[in-house]
Amino acid sequence: MNKRNLLLAQSGGATAVINASAVGVIRQAIDSRAFDKILCARFGINGILKEDFYDVSDITEEALDLLARTPASAFGSCRYKLPDVQDNPEIYGKIAEILDKYDIACLAYNGGNDSMDTCNKIADYFAQIHFPCKVVGIPKTVDNDLEYTHYCPGYGSASKYIATVIEEIALDTAVYEKGRVTICEIMGRDTGWLTAASSIANKAGHGPDLIYLPERDFDIDTFLAKSDQIYRKKGHCLVALSEGIRNANGYIGADGHTDSFDHVQLGGVAQKLCNFVSLKLGINTRAIELSLTQRAAAHMLSLRDQQDAMLCGKYAVKLALEGKAGVMSTINFSDGKTVCGEVALHKVANAVKPVPQEYITQDGSNITPLFDDYITPIISGEVALEYEYGIPKYFDNGTLKKLSDK
Amino acid sequence: MNKRNLLLAQSGGATAVINASAVGVIRQAIDSRAFDKILCARFGINGILKEDFYDVSDITEEALDLLARTPASAFGSCRYKLPDVQDNPEIYGKIAEILDKYDIACLAYNGGNDSMDTCNKIADYFAQIHFPCKVVGIPKTVDNDLEYTHYCPGYGSASKYIATVIEEIALDTAVYEKGRVTICEIMGRDTGWLTAASSIANKAGHGPDLIYLPERDFDIDTFLAKSDQIYRKKGHCLVALSEGIRNANGYIGADGHTDSFDHVQLGGVAQKLCNFVSLKLGINTRAIELSLTQRAAAHMLSLRDQQDAMLCGKYAVKLALEGKAGVMSTINFSDGKTVCGEVALHKVANAVKPVPQEYITQDGSNITPLFDDYITPIISGEVALEYEYGIPKYFDNGTLKKLSDK
Repeated sequence: MNKRNLLLAQSGGATAVINASAVGVIRQAIDSRAFDKILCARFGINGILKEDFYDVSDITEEALDLLARTPASAFGSCRYKLPDVQDNPEIYGKIAEILDKYDIACLAYNGGNDSMDTCNKIADYFAQIHFPCKVVGIPKTVDNDLEYTHYCPGYGSASKYIATVIEEIALDTAVYEKGRVTICEIMGRDTGWLTAASSIANKAGHGPDLIYLPERDFDIDTFLAKSDQIYRKKGHCLVALSEGIRNANGYIGADGHTDSFDHVQLGGVAQKLCNFVSLKLGINTRAIELSLTQRAAAHMLSLRDQQDAMLCGKYAVKLALEGKAGVMSTINFSDGKTVCGEVALHKVANAVKPVPQEYITQDGSNITPLFDDYITPIISGEVALEYEYGIPKYFDNGTLKKLSDK
Repeated sequence: MNKRNLLLAQSGGATAVINASAVGVIRQAIDSRAFDKILCARFGINGILKEDFYDVSDITEEALDLLARTPASAFGSCRYKLPDVQDNPEIYGKIAEILDKYDIACLAYNGGNDSMDTCNKIADYFAQIHFPCKVVGIPKTVDNDLEYTHYCPGYGSASKYIATVIEEIALDTAVYEKGRVTICEIMGRDTGWLTAASSIANKAGHGPDLIYLPERDFDIDTFLAKSDQIYRKKGHCLVALSEGIRNANGYIGADGHTDSFDHVQLGGVAQKLCNFVSLKLGINTRAIELSLTQRAAAHMLSLRDQQDAMLCGKYAVKLALEGKAGVMSTINFSDGKTVCGEVALHKVANAVKPVPQEYITQDGSNITPLFDDYITPIISGEVALEYEYGIPKYFDNGTLKKLSDK
């Protein structure tokens, strides 16, 4: 009798450790000997609908080691918005039909809030039709805004990189007697977790003078007064802020467009505020957007983040093997060590965890020392890289086998 | 009898290894036992005019080790434009007077093209008035556009970082079945050396589809046709280009402002071209400016670059001790090893070394394999970092002693 198969799908934006979670899934699937084939969908849910799969059942340990320190979904990702089941039952039927055809006993879905919503919808539908495939979620987002998990894999490495480059920018922008107001825009549409990480650079002695998160209303006049004061005193001022800073009128950086999830497209808020500073204060400015480099910087992996990403992948497979479905693996810290747990997908789907108010100073322009205890373990440790041609060697997904090629 | 003193000044924009050159100067000055005090001007030439000096004569080896892997002028920099001697003889007289007062036998000046011009003017003046202070230059610029040196310290580390993040951006932007045209803007006002380094990411398997340098006229229509073709075929297109790309009408990214050296201020050319791509081709785009992070990324030092930066600092002091003045230390490669040389400052001042045409493909949209042989040794090797609070530990110039405090 054939054993049944496992299918992994990656979803949403890149992180530096999304593939580490994939490695956790694959290793656990291999070690458990519970599955015949281990498949990975190309381009997430799209790969399922197109029956486009990689077969990684025979992947080598060497390839897994390299994959575990390679950024950005090696199997491809998607931003496909799954409609509600009542609006399009056909697509749910098709997914079940395809997973049945490929004898999938476990669907492991790795992504952020929107992906956990997709995962939850599929799990609900399967439960409803008594389809025997265990759907389990694995957390992933640099934004760190998933509830019910101490932190999200991807956040640690992005934070380590952000704090490092902010430290370097702080050194760079302090070299002139009369410098500029420099404003660094950091990812975070609804929450300021990544921006808060820039505060670690201050522990190291060279960091932002002002830090603004979306969790507090942004007041332009107060910001101008503060940056002016700092500039007059120091000759330069470094500001770190989230792309999603807002006030009662909405996002400061909004330009009206929305993406396929109806999220407002942001970007350019640093430049907007620089224009204000130049105009109102007559000070030279520079806007810096850390952009994609912050979420894909596997050359600056947090060892803890990478290991926890792997653990979350492994634990999700364990949950499925225990017969559980409709759950996501989570990270809990216990005596400094990571202990994985689980949460029902319907709880975590689309919920957003803000930065707690106690991590933000009273006046909303900086981060409190309480945050240090939270972030320090998450960004700790480094991962040794292999270099080729002078730069890090990463996994080449051209070496993967397509299921159809077999 | 008191021995005389050495004075170091740092100038121009940050690099990841400018302090490694300073360490070379300081170590050579200590080892030679030829000087009484080793002073560093705060904020370059401004520190000289204000008699504002650090005294590093007693700096520890431990501090020097840390300084050698800390980015951005630890002693402060300047962008002061020294007038011609006939226009302002007073300022030259004042510099000589101050250096005489502090008994400076050697002025070591570390900077790029503009700084070598400053250095040359001072050296010429001192020769003219027979003032016994040896003025020597040390090359420094991420732009790599100084003539008469195989490469410029700072270029290697910036290139290593750029090639790494471009590799990571290439992975990040390839995850969707239908992606975007992503345009990365890299530093380089007049030359494309830094942008050319992005081609190394292609050797590693994940790099830019198109690379444009200022050395060739940029044609927007050809660019649109090529990016459209690549996007239709691959579902995404990654473009790396210099901020200084231009055509017969001037810089594509110019907005009319100039800096204190009358250089046109650039920036935003990636966003401009993204707007074109959206408008003309109807393709989603993303503009990324690597900005300051590329020149200060000491977390990604090239070992060769760091070592050569130190050698250039040491060699400049040796030149002065041999009685030479008005010269800059240079890097030559001989059988793969670095051998320092010298060049007259009047030759190197304000000269600009473009990327040779044979490194650029016929159609001007990519880099030839010939460039690999040039860049590979320059970006080779890594420097072990010390981490504190999860991020690299850098030198704190607050620990330096002011001469006036003694």
